[in-house]
Amino acid sequence: MRPTLAFDADDTLWHNENHYAETQEAFRALLRPFHDDAWIDARLHETEMRNLSRYGYGIKGFTLSMIETALELTEDRLDGSGLRKVLELGQAMLDKPVEPLPGVAEVLAEVAGTHDLMLITKGDLFDQEAKLAKSGLGGHFSKIEIVSEKDEATYEALLQRHGIRPGAFTMVGNSVKSDILPVLALGGRAVHIPYHLTWAHEVIASPVESPFPVLDSIRDLPALLAGW
Amino acid sequence: MRPTLAFDADDTLWHNENHYAETQEAFRALLRPFHDDAWIDARLHETEMRNLSRYGYGIKGFTLSMIETALELTEDRLDGSGLRKVLELGQAMLDKPVEPLPGVAEVLAEVAGTHDLMLITKGDLFDQEAKLAKSGLGGHFSKIEIVSEKDEATYEALLQRHGIRPGAFTMVGNSVKSDILPVLALGGRAVHIPYHLTWAHEVIASPVESPFPVLDSIRDLPALLAGW
Repeated sequence: MRPTLAFDADDTLWHNENHYAETQEAFRALLRPFHDDAWIDARLHETEMRNLSRYGYGIKGFTLSMIETALELTEDRLDGSGLRKVLELGQAMLDKPVEPLPGVAEVLAEVAGTHDLMLITKGDLFDQEAKLAKSGLGGHFSKIEIVSEKDEATYEALLQRHGIRPGAFTMVGNSVKSDILPVLALGGRAVHIPYHLTWAHEVIASPVESPFPVLDSIRDLPALLAGW
Repeated sequence: MRPTLAFDADDTLWHNENHYAETQEAFRALLRPFHDDAWIDARLHETEMRNLSRYGYGIKGFTLSMIETALELTEDRLDGSGLRKVLELGQAMLDKPVEPLPGVAEVLAEVAGTHDLMLITKGDLFDQEAKLAKSGLGGHFSKIEIVSEKDEATYEALLQRHGIRPGAFTMVGNSVKSDILPVLALGGRAVHIPYHLTWAHEVIASPVESPFPVLDSIRDLPALLAGW
C-alpha cells in the first residue's frame, strides 16, 4: 500500500485568510463613523468566538457575526442600507473565485506518483465543496474529508475509517494547531507550510525549536519527501 | 454481511420542519406592518431559492435569507432592532433542543439487532453534528454521512465507499425526492415515512400508486422489515 499524503485546503492549497482580511477592512470602513479600528476588530473577534459553538467555522457564520457586531456597535443605529452592505460583503466572499497558491497544481500532480492524496479540510461542508469544485484540484485526491473540527480524535477516526496506519500518514498544512500537532500526537508525520496570515483563533505559541519540517512553499515538498 | 438500513435525520428521526414553520410565522409577524403574509412567504421562498447555490441548506443560510428578505420588503426601512430580532430568530433555532419523534429510540435499538444502521443526512455539517449529539441517538449508527445533496450520484458514491450492494441497502426517510426515488433508481429499497410538514423545495408530485411502502410511523418499521 502506498503511503498517504494529506493536505489541508484553506491557505494551504488556495488563498483564504486574505479574503477575510479584505472583508474585515471593508467592515471597519463601514463602522469607522462610530468607533475606532481596534475596538471594531476586538468586538468582532469576541462575537465570532461567542458564536463559534453555535455557527461553527465558515463564511455564513462570519457574516452573521459581522451583522450582530454592527448592530451592537451602533446600538442598532446602522440603517438598512448599511446592513445590506454587510450582507453583500459575505455574499461577495462566497462568490469569489478560488485561487490556488503558486505551484500547487504541479506539486499535487508530482507527489501523486508516489502517494495516495487525501484532502482534509475544516469548515462549512457546502462552502468547502464549492471551493474544491471551483479550484479544479479535486481530481488529484482519492479521498476527500470535510470535518467540523481538526483535533486528535478527528484524525484518529479518519485514519481508522480508511485503514491508514499513522506511520504511513503525512499531513501538510498551514496551521500548527489544526494540521501539525494532532497528527504528530498520533504518531504521524506533518509538514508545516505557513501562510502569510493566520486567523487569531488558530495562533498558538511556537515551540522554541520546531520538531517538524517548515517549508516556505509547497514547491519544496517533493524534495523533502524524497529525502525521507 | 448484514444488510444496511439507512435513515434520514431531519423530520425522520427528529422534528425539524416545524421549527422552520414557527420561525417563519414570527418573521411574518415582524413584517406584517409592511406586507401581507402571502407576499412575505413568496418573497422569502424566492430569496431562499436564489441563494441556494450560494448558501446551501441549513439554518445559517435561512437566517441570512430572512435578513435579505426583510431589507428588500421594507426597502431598508426595517430598523436595527427589527433586524436584531431576525438574527435572534435564527439563533433560537440553532439553540433549540432536538426532539426525537415518537418511538425512534426504541425502533433503532430493535432494528440494530438485524441490520447495520447508517445515518444519511443533508445539510450544514456543523448543525447536523450538533443535532445528532443533542439527540442522543448517535450511538445507534455505525456509519454517519452528512452530505450537501441527496441525489443518485451521492447515494452511489456512499454505497461504493462503504462496499454496500444496492440489493442489501434500504433507506428510510420523509422526503420522496431525497430519500426514496434516488435509492430506488439505484436498485435499493426505500421506505417512506411522511412528516406532517414538507418544505416547498422538497415537494414533488406523488405517483398515482406508490411503488414503495409508506408508513404512518417509524413504529411500523420492524414489522415491515420482518415481512420482507
